Amino acid sequence: MTDTDFGDNTEFRPSFELLGKDRGTAARRGVLTLLHGDVQTPAFMPVGTLATVKAMTPEEVKELGAEIILGNTYHLYLRPGHELIGELGGLHKFMNWDRPILTDSGGYQVYSLADRRKIEEEGVTFQSHLDGSRHKLTPELVVEIQERLGSDVMMVLDECPPHPSTREYLEKSLALTNRWALRSLRARTRPELALFAIIQGGMDTELRLRAVRELTAHPFDGFALGGLSVGEGQKAMLETLDATTPHMPELKPRYLMGVGTPSDIVEAVARGVDMFDCVLPTRNARNGMFFTSQGNIAIKHASFTRDEDPPDRQCSCYTCSNYSRAYIRHLYKAGEILASRLITLHNLHHYQRLLSRIREAVEAGEYSRFVEEFRKSPETGKTT
Amino acid sequence: MTDTDFGDNTEFRPSFELLGKDRGTAARRGVLTLLHGDVQTPAFMPVGTLATVKAMTPEEVKELGAEIILGNTYHLYLRPGHELIGELGGLHKFMNWDRPILTDSGGYQVYSLADRRKIEEEGVTFQSHLDGSRHKLTPELVVEIQERLGSDVMMVLDECPPHPSTREYLEKSLALTNRWALRSLRARTRPELALFAIIQGGMDTELRLRAVRELTAHPFDGFALGGLSVGEGQKAMLETLDATTPHMPELKPRYLMGVGTPSDIVEAVARGVDMFDCVLPTRNARNGMFFTSQGNIAIKHASFTRDEDPPDRQCSCYTCSNYSRAYIRHLYKAGEILASRLITLHNLHHYQRLLSRIREAVEAGEYSRFVEEFRKSPETGKTT
Repeated sequence: MTDTDFGDNTEFRPSFELLGKDRGTAARRGVLTLLHGDVQTPAFMPVGTLATVKAMTPEEVKELGAEIILGNTYHLYLRPGHELIGELGGLHKFMNWDRPILTDSGGYQVYSLADRRKIEEEGVTFQSHLDGSRHKLTPELVVEIQERLGSDVMMVLDECPPHPSTREYLEKSLALTNRWALRSLRARTRPELALFAIIQGGMDTELRLRAVRELTAHPFDGFALGGLSVGEGQKAMLETLDATTPHMPELKPRYLMGVGTPSDIVEAVARGVDMFDCVLPTRNARNGMFFTSQGNIAIKHASFTRDEDPPDRQCSCYTCSNYSRAYIRHLYKAGEILASRLITLHNLHHYQRLLSRIREAVEAGEYSRFVEEFRKSPETGKTT
Repeated sequence: MTDTDFGDNTEFRPSFELLGKDRGTAARRGVLTLLHGDVQTPAFMPVGTLATVKAMTPEEVKELGAEIILGNTYHLYLRPGHELIGELGGLHKFMNWDRPILTDSGGYQVYSLADRRKIEEEGVTFQSHLDGSRHKLTPELVVEIQERLGSDVMMVLDECPPHPSTREYLEKSLALTNRWALRSLRARTRPELALFAIIQGGMDTELRLRAVRELTAHPFDGFALGGLSVGEGQKAMLETLDATTPHMPELKPRYLMGVGTPSDIVEAVARGVDMFDCVLPTRNARNGMFFTSQGNIAIKHASFTRDEDPPDRQCSCYTCSNYSRAYIRHLYKAGEILASRLITLHNLHHYQRLLSRIREAVEAGEYSRFVEEFRKSPETGKTT
């Protein structure tokens, strides 16, 4: 067995370079240099929870332009286990992906377990969603797991408070999250892998700023915004960003976790966010939903039965170049795997293309106009 | 809407050329020239029941070396409907496959409906397995459907008698099947599409030969052997082939329907069969089973948990070049679509590679030795 190759990489240090700022908004262009390569920001990370971007091969994800994908520490810890992945040479080798990987800490997943988990100072005890077995994750173990996986970007264990929460709960939770973040920093043994802290604080501006103050005083490689897109609505989320990002360090990458729709991403970039991940393009694909330049379409609708058009007439992806809505509707209704493949491919292409357009607009210093036009376009529209 | 393009193809006539015969067996090398291209025989046709070879894109199926695939008339008639496919330009355009397609008539599927179908002189009345709606398929309608789909090879409607059946039943059923075959021939309006008759007769040699006599007197483009691989076992199937194929016309292609395992194919080729189709490589893939040079492996087994080897060390396919058994086992157990993709890809590669080896051995006139070696090899082996 080949063990995780710590090889000649121990001298490497992750870095972030700010290439430029937009004139009229807080949008930024940057490049994040990680152990497995560079990531141009703003960037969207396709979600590969269980060591696969669902329905895609790694080559397809690359061809779509993704420079980084996301894995999930909680899920991989339970199945197949970080020890096994480590023995087999690490997550990159295991899944045949040679570009950067960010691993979510699992805090959010544990939070989703609701009454099957208990949060204490030392860490969080929970029952597996798979077999009910008991486990305890501590900040130190979560770093250890991610180092074993060989993640280019590791996330600290945090508590993601439910929305809404009382001020008292939020404050207590935040203090714990921040103590955990510092324990994570101390636990790290592989400085060639980036470690990001997570800023919590719910919709409470004062707490968000407290988190920024407390965490940015320490040498994290980047800062994530957690606890957003948890049901608060886009308006509240953007207000929280408005209040928070201006106080975050300019020379560190900013990652808005689990967000979002194309509109969420366009708006968050205008507020200075650099990185995104979201299951929408992949999960909605498996539910038959296309993101298109004309808004979203649910392919199951009877109106597409005889529709010879491609899903998106303005799209150049493999799916739109070769298949009609009528055919994909047929595949979807018959439960064919090819439906999931074709729609996922298109949706990820749509997201990567959006991010590429965003980067161009920011580079040109014309992001205000881009946002304005986007807000008026059918791309923000409702599902057909 | 573009209608099925009957275009400039009306002058085309399908043909079969016998390129050579093996010295020690009845194996043959041939080439079947169809409207959408040539098919080197012996050939294996991946099954694409519902206008998709499950989990694959057409490009992948091509790259694996398939020169023809199979669709299913009964299934496509019910969903999405031959009228719709015709309106959209025919089956090839609908599914983005530009090589030949053979469509199974649906006789076997209707036979599987058991008590939900009634067979009469005119045709078969049945209830849809999807919504219970009532339908009647006649030999004429089945040809019409396939002409509308634009199948390169159309199959006549037949009755596939259950195994075992009484001699009386078999005889009556065979007479009906043969009358239906002649009605199909008369109903054809597109001679550029091949029409194959189906030889039935159960395990009764006399009836099989009667079918051969009655059907080969008419200008069908090829002859299929139906009603085999229905539970009679390999021995009985091969005995039936031994008794039948020597009496079939040498200059027409012979197609053994729904067969089979690698061993079935190797043995049937030795008895003069040219064409095969089977769901095994694709269906078993979705159930986690690899066909390999060392026999079959069920990837879910715990013994593969930490197995760094590719599924088949002797295989050069994409799956075996890039992934470990441990990774694919993980994907399979997690229910990931990529597991179905990777295993299907390998299994179809394994089948196409087998047929390619078979063709080479027949060309070299050394098929006896090939069969002998195959019988001793682990390829014929049981599932690990």
